[in-house]
Amino acid sequence: MTASARPSVQKYGGTSVANPERLRAVGERIVRRLERGARVVVVVSAMGKTTDELVALAHEVTAQPDGRELDMLLSTGEMVSSALLAMVLRELGHPAIGLSGAQAGVRTDTTFNRARITDIDTRRIETELARGQVVIIAGFQGITSDADVTTLGRGGSDTTAVALAAALGAESAEIYTDVDGVYTTDPRVDAKARKLHDITYEEMLEMAAQGARVLHPRAVELGLLHAVPILVASSFHEEVPGTIIRRQVEMEPTNRVRGIALDRDVAAVTVRAVPDRPGIAAQLFGPLADASISVDTIVQNASMERLTDLTFSVAQDVCQRAQEIVEPVAREIGAAEVIVDHHMAKVSIVGTGIQTAPGYAAMMFRALAGAAINIQLITTSDIRITALVEDASGEEAVRVLHAAFQLDEQVTPSPD
Amino acid sequence: MTASARPSVQKYGGTSVANPERLRAVGERIVRRLERGARVVVVVSAMGKTTDELVALAHEVTAQPDGRELDMLLSTGEMVSSALLAMVLRELGHPAIGLSGAQAGVRTDTTFNRARITDIDTRRIETELARGQVVIIAGFQGITSDADVTTLGRGGSDTTAVALAAALGAESAEIYTDVDGVYTTDPRVDAKARKLHDITYEEMLEMAAQGARVLHPRAVELGLLHAVPILVASSFHEEVPGTIIRRQVEMEPTNRVRGIALDRDVAAVTVRAVPDRPGIAAQLFGPLADASISVDTIVQNASMERLTDLTFSVAQDVCQRAQEIVEPVAREIGAAEVIVDHHMAKVSIVGTGIQTAPGYAAMMFRALAGAAINIQLITTSDIRITALVEDASGEEAVRVLHAAFQLDEQVTPSPD
Repeated sequence: MTASARPSVQKYGGTSVANPERLRAVGERIVRRLERGARVVVVVSAMGKTTDELVALAHEVTAQPDGRELDMLLSTGEMVSSALLAMVLRELGHPAIGLSGAQAGVRTDTTFNRARITDIDTRRIETELARGQVVIIAGFQGITSDADVTTLGRGGSDTTAVALAAALGAESAEIYTDVDGVYTTDPRVDAKARKLHDITYEEMLEMAAQGARVLHPRAVELGLLHAVPILVASSFHEEVPGTIIRRQVEMEPTNRVRGIALDRDVAAVTVRAVPDRPGIAAQLFGPLADASISVDTIVQNASMERLTDLTFSVAQDVCQRAQEIVEPVAREIGAAEVIVDHHMAKVSIVGTGIQTAPGYAAMMFRALAGAAINIQLITTSDIRITALVEDASGEEAVRVLHAAFQLDEQVTPSPD
Repeated sequence: MTASARPSVQKYGGTSVANPERLRAVGERIVRRLERGARVVVVVSAMGKTTDELVALAHEVTAQPDGRELDMLLSTGEMVSSALLAMVLRELGHPAIGLSGAQAGVRTDTTFNRARITDIDTRRIETELARGQVVIIAGFQGITSDADVTTLGRGGSDTTAVALAAALGAESAEIYTDVDGVYTTDPRVDAKARKLHDITYEEMLEMAAQGARVLHPRAVELGLLHAVPILVASSFHEEVPGTIIRRQVEMEPTNRVRGIALDRDVAAVTVRAVPDRPGIAAQLFGPLADASISVDTIVQNASMERLTDLTFSVAQDVCQRAQEIVEPVAREIGAAEVIVDHHMAKVSIVGTGIQTAPGYAAMMFRALAGAAINIQLITTSDIRITALVEDASGEEAVRVLHAAFQLDEQVTPSPD
């Protein structure tokens, strides 16, 4: 197989194709890649705010749009982009063809509005590539075995791109967007934030889940599952290098902090002096699950005299309801009281291997203590250590940790 | 087969579905039909000026949009309408499903932008009807055997409706539009114009070709070919009866004038004193055909001393080029001169059987002479007699003939 036999898969988001001028800029960028000998498959989102406008139109005719009909409606947005970008490329002198998700062979289950890709029949794409065409695929959509159009829900076009890269054996999925990569922390919070050259899927998932919002976790998970490297880079500044999301390159984990994540949409509910006996957690969390309230972190403190404190975090907009549900249960099981902290933040250090190297936690707590920031709760995952702090201290905590782990420098220190 | 086994096929044009309010009105209208026990298949156009806007968008990115990509782009307009109208019906409590042309099984050849329907695989439509759904089909589009989207060109949604009515064995194709039927002549020209209860396909073709513009001739031809009656009626005024286009109901032609057609986009080119020998017509009209100039009426006067006058009519915008092409040829073949009348009009009386009843022509000429309107040229078809007159006299000629044939009354006189 020659080098050019592996196609490049590029995805351009809604902002990048928002109008004819931007479509032309994207077209010129693709042409430069073609001139370097690549075969290119492009995935496009709907132009600008098109999807929102179509949703609004649906809501003008009905309060509850039917899922199937909504998907047929929404799918038109990406079809428009793909047809127009194909025209742009032809205008620039390169054969190009636009394909709907259905034509591109993107098959999904029948869960309208948030369908999952079941497989991709790449024959049409391969045929068009063999004919020398740039293949431009409407992202965010697929087709069921009954030939009904589906959409993939949030992160859909990113997911299409990663799935196509996997199916076509592309070297990577290149996601061009209005941010130029993944940073050590949010540059709006800490001006010293530095763009990462690379990051692992797992680290990226922790960063994104904690608020980095560069790429939908679903696309990252798909990349992880199929070992497809994902490049995130600017669609506007071609010369600026982005960040590549990939498997750990070194054999041993690097044991270093890669980034600081901040999530400010957090409320904490503490049930105090809970009798420590089996079944209590189920009694508390069953009614919350029944009310579709998503509980994030749960921490139960060590018990004294068979009484424990139990704290969990929820998103701020459901905090009131969570309290209303928990209070009667707390009374019933004989807990002392329910305390709610409405304005909390989660600050996390993220990096493969840090959880197994205990020194990182100590470094984190020492740094926060040095800035007189109180930690209310601590949780860890394989690659993350998270502290729950007062929201008012959240941004300062990010800056303190970013400095403590020297993330503004190329190499971060290890604790030993 | 029960009565309800034959579905109603209704088509609503762009003006009728231009916004959410009008979509709701169309939905309510369909519901009233459902409540009378009908099974309904609906064909919709794109909302309002959507198609024009999409064409403009294409022209913003390229001077020459590729046919295939343009069709993919344009097809989205009707998909949006069908999805929204399905939502409206569900909101009104009736199960409904939107289908793209591809999903509805509308198969076409590969002539992008003006594809011809090759056949309709009605299985999906039949299945959905059997499930009790109102089936709402995106008009104007189909799919090739290679799964490429095509559009049908001008009159496309009307054509979709008539083709579906034929394929589904519907009693008729009902075309709801912003005019409420076919009139004896253009009501803007003659206030006495009267709406016809019925008209034959052939008469309609002559009326439309001569400027009636109610329904695209292509849809009428398809109705004729498959013997599908076509109802043309108002989409806004449900109580107003429309006009039905159908086969001659009586066994013998009725021998009466049904309408007066006026075409004001006419220029006449006369080549004077042409030597009357074989091959002259080919020499004159060959170069016009090569230049893609469509020549309408051709009349060659009786020859005197082997010299004839040859007159033909063209659309006004190509008149200048026609003259430039014909003049050198005229010189070459030894004709005397080329005379161009830039502003002419064709006035026609239309009615099955009138051509075989010579009295009608005499009545027509007498009426025009009585109003001192000069006839420059006369042509006839099976069901039409056309006079070429000065454009300035065109509208008066219509009124004179409308009165002479008493078209404002229910029964028109025959000449004998």
